[in-house]
Amino acid sequence: MADRPSEFALIAEVFAPLATAPGAFGLTDDAAVLPARAGCDLVVTTDVLVEGVHFLADDPPDSIAKKALRVNLSDLAAKGAEPAGYLLALSLPERIDLNWIEDFARGLGDDQTAFDLPLLGGDTTATPGPLTLAITAMGYVPAGKMIRRAGAMPGDGVFVSGTVGDAGGGLAILKGEGAALGASERAQLTGRYRVPTPRLALGQGLRGIASAALDVSDGLIADLAHIAEVSGVRIVVEAERMPYSAALRALWGDTPKARLRAATSGDDYEIAFTARSDNAVLEAARHAGVPVTRLGRVEAGSGVALLDSGGREITVPRAGFTHF
Amino acid sequence: MADRPSEFALIAEVFAPLATAPGAFGLTDDAAVLPARAGCDLVVTTDVLVEGVHFLADDPPDSIAKKALRVNLSDLAAKGAEPAGYLLALSLPERIDLNWIEDFARGLGDDQTAFDLPLLGGDTTATPGPLTLAITAMGYVPAGKMIRRAGAMPGDGVFVSGTVGDAGGGLAILKGEGAALGASERAQLTGRYRVPTPRLALGQGLRGIASAALDVSDGLIADLAHIAEVSGVRIVVEAERMPYSAALRALWGDTPKARLRAATSGDDYEIAFTARSDNAVLEAARHAGVPVTRLGRVEAGSGVALLDSGGREITVPRAGFTHF
Repeated sequence: MADRPSEFALIAEVFAPLATAPGAFGLTDDAAVLPARAGCDLVVTTDVLVEGVHFLADDPPDSIAKKALRVNLSDLAAKGAEPAGYLLALSLPERIDLNWIEDFARGLGDDQTAFDLPLLGGDTTATPGPLTLAITAMGYVPAGKMIRRAGAMPGDGVFVSGTVGDAGGGLAILKGEGAALGASERAQLTGRYRVPTPRLALGQGLRGIASAALDVSDGLIADLAHIAEVSGVRIVVEAERMPYSAALRALWGDTPKARLRAATSGDDYEIAFTARSDNAVLEAARHAGVPVTRLGRVEAGSGVALLDSGGREITVPRAGFTHF
Repeated sequence: MADRPSEFALIAEVFAPLATAPGAFGLTDDAAVLPARAGCDLVVTTDVLVEGVHFLADDPPDSIAKKALRVNLSDLAAKGAEPAGYLLALSLPERIDLNWIEDFARGLGDDQTAFDLPLLGGDTTATPGPLTLAITAMGYVPAGKMIRRAGAMPGDGVFVSGTVGDAGGGLAILKGEGAALGASERAQLTGRYRVPTPRLALGQGLRGIASAALDVSDGLIADLAHIAEVSGVRIVVEAERMPYSAALRALWGDTPKARLRAATSGDDYEIAFTARSDNAVLEAARHAGVPVTRLGRVEAGSGVALLDSGGREITVPRAGFTHF
């Protein structure tokens, strides 16, 4: 990049204080070193966020930073991994100024402290297009212990952490729904959309307990369908058991249609998982301090079925499955 | 991403055959596992390429793929690392069709075979902007043995692999220079720009021999200035010793001005390094089958000096230092 050299040098200075690991060399080298941890595998994941697609141009820079980091941390959480560090690839349109970058870096810094992981390295470039950021996150798991999507077995229970649909409600509010909603509910739901909470302690506690897990990004039903597909099983969810927040009830009401909408909303970043032992799950949830709800069961077969209170299958529109 | 689900599912199918490592799970999971290698650290690096900035919209898709992978491999090479795998974050404008993706994936596949590393995972998303791709590459080095930028000492020699300036010549040709140049020279120089060769065997051979190293991406002088800065030394380069290809001579002639232009051209992806022992360097070069040239020496002080044949310092325009 020859076009904005001094600016990029400034940007490097803004990010250097975030490179707190010895192996990051204060961002002065071409690459970083992540020391091996004896007896551990490394779990690696990458997620891209594009302005206008995954966030809005006028979203606060620190919340964009946090969301980008947290969606990656959420992947590590669902896999049972402990965060080790991350790399940041940033493509900046010309209108982004140093103030914006500083606010963005402050968001990263806050979350690095909260979730105990350093910036290891990155790359900054100009783009004639929208702001685009790719984060690659790395974490440690005891060798062979990553919780996979494949592994759900007939007879297992199906579980989810937290509540379902809040982020979808938050996005709906940002798009103009719920004008009559109270300020507290608005803040709660939009906060769930803007800054999700990766369930790291729970994920680590589920190693050896969960037979399959992932984080809910596409929507509960769509994501459980991923588990069903790669595990070669059928997953049955009872709509009534779905954990449904008071704030979302205030926004959407509590009808079968509203619950279906929640079950097909994305961006909650809760952990959905299957496990054989209810007691072991409850113990892990208690230890992590995270509410976990049993939603249903794993059966032989394929696909996901959502049942109403009478045990009848609710038809899920295809859109609930095809988010990507 | 809800807008092009079936297309993204197809894309996943195109990339799945590249995910040859057991820990990539055929791209069916949220994350990949990279098993620790006993006694090794992991070296990690990320580079972004943006259409219109780092490559042209009508460049062949397979050469875009190769360049993206190779600029990352070149970082691993300069650090002495052995490739372990990579992640790909791809932001696709709507006009990119499946044929393009297939050609792109073929380029990746060819280079995975050539350089022996698997795709571990990735993320694909839509973008309203230019095609943007971020690759994160990972490699193994014996613990503590990564070759750093910091480490050059007064009395060391200064070296570079291959020839200098060819990629700059290739870019000049693509922009319209050298209309009278022969087809063979054109192909050689544009090939150096489009598809660089990461010097992996040489880099691994330089572990314990090079005191500092990096790959030449910004330009020889600018990159040596990075070594000088973080090592706290002065680097002196004799322009006449700079390895200068016959093809580049045919394009630019061999004047001090042409050599200065070569020394300040980017994208060669050769390894520039410092080392105490000329003999050890020559032995490593012979073993790797890569030509290496001694360019000059490390002294006490700061900055980079380019000397003409009379030992006078050639003034390097500031642009030669401020590429980023």
